[in-house]
Amino acid sequence: MTGPATDNAPAGGEGARSLTADAIARIVRGKLEGDGAAVVTGIAPLDRATEMDLSFLASGKYTDAAAASRAPVLLVAPDLMEAHSRARARIVVDRPQEALLALIPRLYDAPRPEGAGIHPTARIGRGARLGKDVSLAAYAVIGDGAVLGDGVIVEAGVVVGNGVRVGAGSVLWPAVVLYPRTTLGERVLVHAGARIGCDGFGYVPDQGGHRKIPHVGRCIIEDDVEIGANSTIDRGSIDDTVIGAGTKIDNLVHIAHNVRIGRLCVIMAQVGIAGSARIGDGVVIAGEGGLAGHLMIGDRARVGGQAGVFGDVPPGETWSGYPARPHRQSLRASAALLRLVDIIKKLERLVDRE
Amino acid sequence: MTGPATDNAPAGGEGARSLTADAIARIVRGKLEGDGAAVVTGIAPLDRATEMDLSFLASGKYTDAAAASRAPVLLVAPDLMEAHSRARARIVVDRPQEALLALIPRLYDAPRPEGAGIHPTARIGRGARLGKDVSLAAYAVIGDGAVLGDGVIVEAGVVVGNGVRVGAGSVLWPAVVLYPRTTLGERVLVHAGARIGCDGFGYVPDQGGHRKIPHVGRCIIEDDVEIGANSTIDRGSIDDTVIGAGTKIDNLVHIAHNVRIGRLCVIMAQVGIAGSARIGDGVVIAGEGGLAGHLMIGDRARVGGQAGVFGDVPPGETWSGYPARPHRQSLRASAALLRLVDIIKKLERLVDRE
Amino acid sequence: MTGPATDNAPAGGEGARSLTADAIARIVRGKLEGDGAAVVTGIAPLDRATEMDLSFLASGKYTDAAAASRAPVLLVAPDLMEAHSRARARIVVDRPQEALLALIPRLYDAPRPEGAGIHPTARIGRGARLGKDVSLAAYAVIGDGAVLGDGVIVEAGVVVGNGVRVGAGSVLWPAVVLYPRTTLGERVLVHAGARIGCDGFGYVPDQGGHRKIPHVGRCIIEDDVEIGANSTIDRGSIDDTVIGAGTKIDNLVHIAHNVRIGRLCVIMAQVGIAGSARIGDGVVIAGEGGLAGHLMIGDRARVGGQAGVFGDVPPGETWSGYPARPHRQSLRASAALLRLVDIIKKLERLVDRE
Repeated sequence: MTGPATDNAPAGGEGARSLTADAIARIVRGKLEGDGAAVVTGIAPLDRATEMDLSFLASGKYTDAAAASRAPVLLVAPDLMEAHSRARARIVVDRPQEALLALIPRLYDAPRPEGAGIHPTARIGRGARLGKDVSLAAYAVIGDGAVLGDGVIVEAGVVVGNGVRVGAGSVLWPAVVLYPRTTLGERVLVHAGARIGCDGFGYVPDQGGHRKIPHVGRCIIEDDVEIGANSTIDRGSIDDTVIGAGTKIDNLVHIAHNVRIGRLCVIMAQVGIAGSARIGDGVVIAGEGGLAGHLMIGDRARVGGQAGVFGDVPPGETWSGYPARPHRQSLRASAALLRLVDIIKKLERLVDRE
Repeated sequence: MTGPATDNAPAGGEGARSLTADAIARIVRGKLEGDGAAVVTGIAPLDRATEMDLSFLASGKYTDAAAASRAPVLLVAPDLMEAHSRARARIVVDRPQEALLALIPRLYDAPRPEGAGIHPTARIGRGARLGKDVSLAAYAVIGDGAVLGDGVIVEAGVVVGNGVRVGAGSVLWPAVVLYPRTTLGERVLVHAGARIGCDGFGYVPDQGGHRKIPHVGRCIIEDDVEIGANSTIDRGSIDDTVIGAGTKIDNLVHIAHNVRIGRLCVIMAQVGIAGSARIGDGVVIAGEGGLAGHLMIGDRARVGGQAGVFGDVPPGETWSGYPARPHRQSLRASAALLRLVDIIKKLERLVDRE
Repeated sequence: MTGPATDNAPAGGEGARSLTADAIARIVRGKLEGDGAAVVTGIAPLDRATEMDLSFLASGKYTDAAAASRAPVLLVAPDLMEAHSRARARIVVDRPQEALLALIPRLYDAPRPEGAGIHPTARIGRGARLGKDVSLAAYAVIGDGAVLGDGVIVEAGVVVGNGVRVGAGSVLWPAVVLYPRTTLGERVLVHAGARIGCDGFGYVPDQGGHRKIPHVGRCIIEDDVEIGANSTIDRGSIDDTVIGAGTKIDNLVHIAHNVRIGRLCVIMAQVGIAGSARIGDGVVIAGEGGLAGHLMIGDRARVGGQAGVFGDVPPGETWSGYPARPHRQSLRASAALLRLVDIIKKLERLVDRE
């Protein structure tokens, strides 16, 4: 974790620097109008910007807010360049919000893990191997035979099980637990309290009780995956659980045993994916969605918020609702139901008369 | 964590004391009928009370249970004072359940964090400042420049990031993680495993992949907030995430980046609130409810269990269902659908005949 | 956590051994056909099996996969014994998947906690009592007066509160937190990050704010219960929270104060059970299901995935949907709604003409 704070640290931490409108236009490759010497030291939404903040106007919804904003410098989308504002400088740029991404690191230090060597209280198991520049914070526990690649950062209180492999450049935020033999690729980010490689939830009936199925499959997290705080991912029973490269998983998500998720998926908070489901590449599943076991979600499909998916979703389709159906169908069903409310009594009378 | 237990500790822990019916009537300002010398040492529901337990009758549903109960002393609501019971003493009081609140601490020690100084294994970062009577339990880790107010209690295994501020009287139960620069007000209670100030879940498309948006906004938890076990609250991207004073959040709740929740809200277990949502004051959201991003929930609105809210909810209204609508409308829709089931075949025939 | 890994550890960890088809037939009491000398060193699904893997055919859905599989030895259900395959040996057995359970431990070491004595960094509170062969891993914290039975395994970073009791043979995976006075029976498995015995979520209105209800009830987990990663179970307010013997709880489940769950239930991931609900024996609740407070679920009832249960469910019934109803009724309602979509316009016209 980085940098000491002072009593008057601004949003985003102290160490805030300044940029002129000229410099901003250069960085975002935008067209400057007005006073290139106008200075900002931070970034804020239109309504909360002070006279030292850069702000941005990306949607016609916010032209009133732009007119009222105190921001001295504005990033403005081309179609809104005529919008009224008191800004001393305006910079026209195609996608103002994306342009901000290049500016944030110039003005702020984002909180990030510190990476400061091996703390004397970190425990390292027998036969564990650490790459170059690995950091282990206080009370981290590394299991026997674990292998951590170059530059891996392990924060306070993390528990890495025996035989785990973590690829170069990965970061484990505090209190992460990796069950034995879990495998993480390179540049994987795991947020606080995520549990990876847990026992799957499987039992067989046995003398009136539930006998636990041993789980000997693997849990494989590929390169560039991000896993949110307190999410849980089970390892496979016999088969493996696999999260494909570049897939991003939000907080409090549950992924069951033997699930395979493709590359570059986006799985939002509190989604649950039951056992042995197969998810293609580039799939987006919105918050609180649930997927039943053993189903297939095709490449680039999208699943709506809170959707309950009990069957396969073809590639490229958007499904929503409970039970989930193609989104247009769900919308029509909701609308039809509302219209039904107004006429149900009359319909019953019609039917009675028959 | 408090007080050693013995082998025969009663429910609620040992150290149970006794109260006479006389004393109880005085404490709750109720009207005593019967034997003021009757003694109790605990509190229990009607059906589980022993001859040493106080019990209570607050609803007509439970008059049979009251008649059968062994409790020697009963708190009784005024409209139920004629209900039959074998109790030696009855105390008539307006709201029996609330009256219990004054009695519980007289009979029980609730489990609470201990607050016993700085454990020798607690690590304190450079430039961190601790107020008076701060307690740090075993293996707590306090980041550089963190500031803990008077009387703050930090339990075992908690990780407080760099530059975090925790107001006086706050309690962090075991294994809590506060990301760098998170700010907690006074008397904030954070339960085991909650993660506060995490990276928000935001990416922009970049060369076929997902590029992470740096999060430099703050996460601000105001005074008297309570946050349940394993809940997660992300910090803002540029704007802040704010939880208003006196708001209570249950277990396994997810609150995304830039969300603003007002004062005195009640957010029940497993609720998910997507990015940039605005929640007013005094809002109640029942368990497993989900709110889409960028919407507004007006003051004192109520959202039903498992509701999927995809649009703004006006102040004071109660919404439920999926997609959520005004509660009365949701109920009517559910009822109409059930009635439809019985006549759909006939309706299809009617339509065919046209 | 067990056994060091080597660079070439197979799925399920190293130490994989081999079995002949003869030996397999003997172990599973199946009927061997073909070459009893055929050897396997692992187990895999039909499509991923190598020429060293045992596989199985339990459903007619997979006869094509069986025909294409490279597995040299197959377990086959009796009704599929005629299915085509290239396997050198087939073993006919009633329930192939259950038969695998006897074979897995012969071929694999499942990841399991290590149990290797008391680590010097483990902290043991005053008056705590440890049975024979208790293991405490690094940075485990055991509260004052806690009692751990024989053979209990406490993994790294676990926090056991004051006065907690843990029965013989139980296992606490890393980072588990047991609040003070929680009681666990024998052979209870608690996965990483579960929080048990937390404060219940209860308040009474007080001068415009929320006053916290002290929770002095107990949290009792009976024998042979398993609790998934990051799940949360609150203790009772005055009454107790009880999880019955042999009940299995998946990841990220929330169980509120005063809930009573019977014996041998199966509660899948992300289910939420609100306060004071009563669940019978042998109940199954599928993923993301939600139960409102104070309701009763009868013995052997089943609740579908994402169901929202707002009323009692009679014994033995299967309910689903939102709001939940008997499953057949839910299916009929979904079907009727879809059919309504096609005729709603005509129905409105019919009604208009009346």
